[in-house]
Amino acid sequence: MRIGIVGATGIVGTKLIQLLEKTHLPITELRLIASVHSSGKLIIFKEKLLEVYKISAEVFDNLDLVFFMASSDVAKEYVDVAISKGAVVIDNSSAFRMKENVPLVVPEVNQEVITKNDRLIANPNCSTIQLVVPLYLLSKINQIKRVDVSTYQAVSGAGKEAIDEFIEQIKNYETKKVKPQILPVKDELVHYEIINNAIPQIDVFENNNYTKEEMKVIHESQKILNKKMQISCTAVRIPVLNGHSESVTVTFENEVSLNLVKEAFNEEKNLIVLDDPKNQVYPLAKIANGKNEVFIGRVRKDIYANNILHFFVVADNLLKGAAANALQIAEKCYSEKIYGW
Amino acid sequence: MRIGIVGATGIVGTKLIQLLEKTHLPITELRLIASVHSSGKLIIFKEKLLEVYKISAEVFDNLDLVFFMASSDVAKEYVDVAISKGAVVIDNSSAFRMKENVPLVVPEVNQEVITKNDRLIANPNCSTIQLVVPLYLLSKINQIKRVDVSTYQAVSGAGKEAIDEFIEQIKNYETKKVKPQILPVKDELVHYEIINNAIPQIDVFENNNYTKEEMKVIHESQKILNKKMQISCTAVRIPVLNGHSESVTVTFENEVSLNLVKEAFNEEKNLIVLDDPKNQVYPLAKIANGKNEVFIGRVRKDIYANNILHFFVVADNLLKGAAANALQIAEKCYSEKIYGW
Repeated sequence: MRIGIVGATGIVGTKLIQLLEKTHLPITELRLIASVHSSGKLIIFKEKLLEVYKISAEVFDNLDLVFFMASSDVAKEYVDVAISKGAVVIDNSSAFRMKENVPLVVPEVNQEVITKNDRLIANPNCSTIQLVVPLYLLSKINQIKRVDVSTYQAVSGAGKEAIDEFIEQIKNYETKKVKPQILPVKDELVHYEIINNAIPQIDVFENNNYTKEEMKVIHESQKILNKKMQISCTAVRIPVLNGHSESVTVTFENEVSLNLVKEAFNEEKNLIVLDDPKNQVYPLAKIANGKNEVFIGRVRKDIYANNILHFFVVADNLLKGAAANALQIAEKCYSEKIYGW
Repeated sequence: MRIGIVGATGIVGTKLIQLLEKTHLPITELRLIASVHSSGKLIIFKEKLLEVYKISAEVFDNLDLVFFMASSDVAKEYVDVAISKGAVVIDNSSAFRMKENVPLVVPEVNQEVITKNDRLIANPNCSTIQLVVPLYLLSKINQIKRVDVSTYQAVSGAGKEAIDEFIEQIKNYETKKVKPQILPVKDELVHYEIINNAIPQIDVFENNNYTKEEMKVIHESQKILNKKMQISCTAVRIPVLNGHSESVTVTFENEVSLNLVKEAFNEEKNLIVLDDPKNQVYPLAKIANGKNEVFIGRVRKDIYANNILHFFVVADNLLKGAAANALQIAEKCYSEKIYGW
């Protein structure tokens, strides 16, 4: 398999290269692609030095699969080019996620929607991925009426510059104030320190006063679960380098059985149940950091309503929330021989 | 007025002394009281040095009002003593909050429950106080059916040792790992780093797998609002030094008007509405830090259910969440001449 990675020097692209070291995909070529700023760099892959190529139409010649781990703008400009040259594309940007005929895939939930005619597969938003894994399992045991999510999102979700800004604030904690210039959103007018703060803005606001991040969680979850359930999200950035947490309340149409919920959660091997409160076992950003799985705990029924369930779900937003989910899609397509690779 | 402060050298007691510098209460004596570890210390109040007295029965002689800003154990041992010697007590611990005949007071909500026969007034939990201020205003415009809260709680809520532990982790970010020994709960067996983490445990777990902190929010809110509405809470500690945030979903019995909600919020002078998303105006822990008011924003209706409202509410957990609320109770009792001070 000849594989390309667009955004190879970015934070998610870097994670994907690390994951590809251990994949069972039969890689014969790995072509690293980035913007002009990063082209020419050398990156080690399987003990060989690979050069990073500048993005252009020609760079997509003769590839079977291209991971787009870059911005929506880059995806909009080059995804069609890659497809027209014969590649299948897995795109991590939000550019095509809500497009009707583009599968939006979390393998534990809806890998089966991919057919050989799909040349473009969208990788969902990080906050969406870790949410829909448990929601899908719950939807099989009881009809979900609505979902309310409050997120605790890590700085790494805002990219390298945001991480650098946060680390500068930590390092200079005692000596000087580091003026924020990136978070919450680089291109916005106002910036706030993330150290010692919780910022209820991730991405820009839409006209309905929800952020784009919140609307992504809402719309993408509905698409992946193929269900127009009621769903709300409040997305909050917290001073954590990596690993998103979510506090989730699920309202079912009918009474829910906690035993059935636990059984369902335990059956999914990529969902690790850490739920033993009396021994202080619950998911943590520090535990999820560096792992490919989704971690769940604090699973409990509402005290007053027997059709309401609460839980806390955590994942590495760069791995299961981005690079690992994208690779998992590719590996499933390979093992199911969808594209004849 | 002769005022005593038990726990005068603690984190909340210190804040209270600072606030008393500017109170209109006619203070003729301020008696600072603490455990044997802190007795003998000297603290400046209104340009005079005050000695800290060791707690004992005798230290409560001839006081009109005593603020207990200490643990439940200290309150259980000495509140009755102070009362028997003629003082009115405002207790910040959880020892008596849920006791039937003890008023649990947030002045913006239920100051009127205090009568001259009440010798003990309980100050609610920090997470409860900032929550019930908006809930009370909402309850006046529409019947509340249920409330779902996810908290983003600061380290200062766990006391001085927790703050010191967190600052050590920040200072040694690059050089060495500082083994956690305090958070999430000092007396528990397992401790987790708070830096770069979000810990879904505040206080110990009860048998129903909710934490004591979560159950406090539930029961205290019901008592203060005098309403047995459905309420759930997921309490999470985040790496923020001071200032609690809460993401709140309120379900009403009937359709709610956003205009009426905004009017109600704007009429309460101690609730500052920071809610202009297109100009990136919303409440932040950094903004609430050092302030006595409650800050609210991200107020919006649910996209799917016209009887559901979401908002984000932030306050300084040591001030409005503790010392400032306690002082406000005393000041109201004084201005309303409840006790003849």
